Amino acid sequence: MKFKALGVAVAFALTTAGTAAWAAKVRDEPIQPIEPYKTSNPAKVELGKKLWFEPRLSLSGIISCNTCHNLSRGGTDNLKTSIGHGWKAGPVNAPTVLNSSLALAQFWDGRAANLQEQAAGPIQADIEMNMPHALAVEVLQSIPGYVNEFKAVFGTDKIDVSLITAAIAEFEETLVTPNSRFDKWLKGDDKALNAKELAGWELFKGAGCVACHNGPAAGGTSFQRMGLVEPYQSTSPVEGRAAVTGVDADRFNFKVPTLRNVEMTYPYFHDGEAATLEQAVDIMGRLQLGRKFSEEEVGNIVAFLKTLTGEQPQITMPILPPSSNATPRPDPFQ
Amino acid sequence: MKFKALGVAVAFALTTAGTAAWAAKVRDEPIQPIEPYKTSNPAKVELGKKLWFEPRLSLSGIISCNTCHNLSRGGTDNLKTSIGHGWKAGPVNAPTVLNSSLALAQFWDGRAANLQEQAAGPIQADIEMNMPHALAVEVLQSIPGYVNEFKAVFGTDKIDVSLITAAIAEFEETLVTPNSRFDKWLKGDDKALNAKELAGWELFKGAGCVACHNGPAAGGTSFQRMGLVEPYQSTSPVEGRAAVTGVDADRFNFKVPTLRNVEMTYPYFHDGEAATLEQAVDIMGRLQLGRKFSEEEVGNIVAFLKTLTGEQPQITMPILPPSSNATPRPDPFQ
Repeated sequence: MKFKALGVAVAFALTTAGTAAWAAKVRDEPIQPIEPYKTSNPAKVELGKKLWFEPRLSLSGIISCNTCHNLSRGGTDNLKTSIGHGWKAGPVNAPTVLNSSLALAQFWDGRAANLQEQAAGPIQADIEMNMPHALAVEVLQSIPGYVNEFKAVFGTDKIDVSLITAAIAEFEETLVTPNSRFDKWLKGDDKALNAKELAGWELFKGAGCVACHNGPAAGGTSFQRMGLVEPYQSTSPVEGRAAVTGVDADRFNFKVPTLRNVEMTYPYFHDGEAATLEQAVDIMGRLQLGRKFSEEEVGNIVAFLKTLTGEQPQITMPILPPSSNATPRPDPFQ
Repeated sequence: MKFKALGVAVAFALTTAGTAAWAAKVRDEPIQPIEPYKTSNPAKVELGKKLWFEPRLSLSGIISCNTCHNLSRGGTDNLKTSIGHGWKAGPVNAPTVLNSSLALAQFWDGRAANLQEQAAGPIQADIEMNMPHALAVEVLQSIPGYVNEFKAVFGTDKIDVSLITAAIAEFEETLVTPNSRFDKWLKGDDKALNAKELAGWELFKGAGCVACHNGPAAGGTSFQRMGLVEPYQSTSPVEGRAAVTGVDADRFNFKVPTLRNVEMTYPYFHDGEAATLEQAVDIMGRLQLGRKFSEEEVGNIVAFLKTLTGEQPQITMPILPPSSNATPRPDPFQ
């Protein structure tokens, strides 16, 4: 379960800790603070963490979830589009896993309803991990360390894909980034933002960016058309939401990405074609709002966006249980 | 510096901790215990850890030291031979980084005298990270977070390759695995090994395996010919030490690998052709000692070898500083 701190509780905690006299209640803004996540099932999280870092879920034996959603790098790979099995390039930019539990659906086109459903996709996608689900199960079932841990967490000797993805999703739920400077400001600390950052926030809000980038994740709450006012020029063949709904009107509709930790999740957009935050802000202004931001305005908004970098999850690397003699070996060149 | 515990000191520490009445002194055996490593420069270790996990030291932006020397997996990738830039396969099996500071030289052929010299190689090797050193320096120098950290550690604004590799080597020095069951036995705990494991150790010693697999790392102390009694049959074109010395007599001489954590570092040999410990023990017995071990003997030696798994380094993943707008972007398809 998630602990959604009320303003009052926050004020109490901070005052008693002696850190802030400013804490009163959360400001009423279109973006809300990220709250820490506390799991009720640490053993499941620990198993999920092992699977998150588990290259044996890929046919090559060298690609794990963390390869493209690197927790040292804001939960992304910082490539335009990811590289997968056989050095193939994927069609879209890897979205950050951080705070992804807050989104209304998963993938750029929202084709997965939740994190568990999402996790099943890249394992078997031929340009990602290229691992048939049946083989992934066979591999884990052959490793005594995993058999014991699935038994302890799920009470069964029989591993299956739904248990694998349930554990991974449980781990992903923990990957939130609270206590950004913007969150501190939201919770009442007037000094958390400087004048430039505050001007950027006011402009971000006043210009209408918050129409899409809202909620605790500053995004992830809706699907929107990329190129509302002006069409987006791209060589990417990806059509977005239409691939899921089959409705032509959904062409180039994408899930609005979170802006949390956006300083770390470059490059930007579904095709990764915006290399810098300045480019991304300029393009969004023109294409979505029909507004050409001045250089100063872009600078202010970028300054604000950098205040959305929160505390990154502290991850102790798991030690993965060794394969047994019966474990199918990786096959990088198939 | 390393803390080499004397037998007396160990006995004192363990007795006062109330954990063992057995502790007397370290047994006089051809393999000695691994001792914990304590750095005198934690800031340098921390920088080295970031660089160890830094995919921007590769041209593709996705390969780090940890890709092939995965600290979740005994410091190896568990492939026959590693996959590098462009999905190219390397010529040899990735040796474990764990306890590598204890070896007389680095790489299978010993062509690097120490860890710092070693670290420079894979960064620029075209089948590994494929990153020109000058570009690696340019990338780090463009990232404010790194500039500040190099300044704090080395007192200079100018990053160069020798500083990068010095920091990585400092981190690698910490990657030792003390307190294996065999080490506990060496330090006097008679109950640390069962009868089968002890029989395996006695056979390992009596049959002559310790002629090469000796010292704290149970290897890494000499170069030896692969195929002393019978020639090693392999399709691998690698010639070992001769490539370094230019001396024909050094053909197929390789650095004796450490057996520490050998349960985790499969597959075995320079070409990774032995999939299991049982195969490796059988082949070593025949080729190096002219002795065909019985199935029971192989089982006993394997049981002993599994007692060499020590405490794995507890690594908190670093958070890598984001690139600046000036940072050269990765180029996976060059």
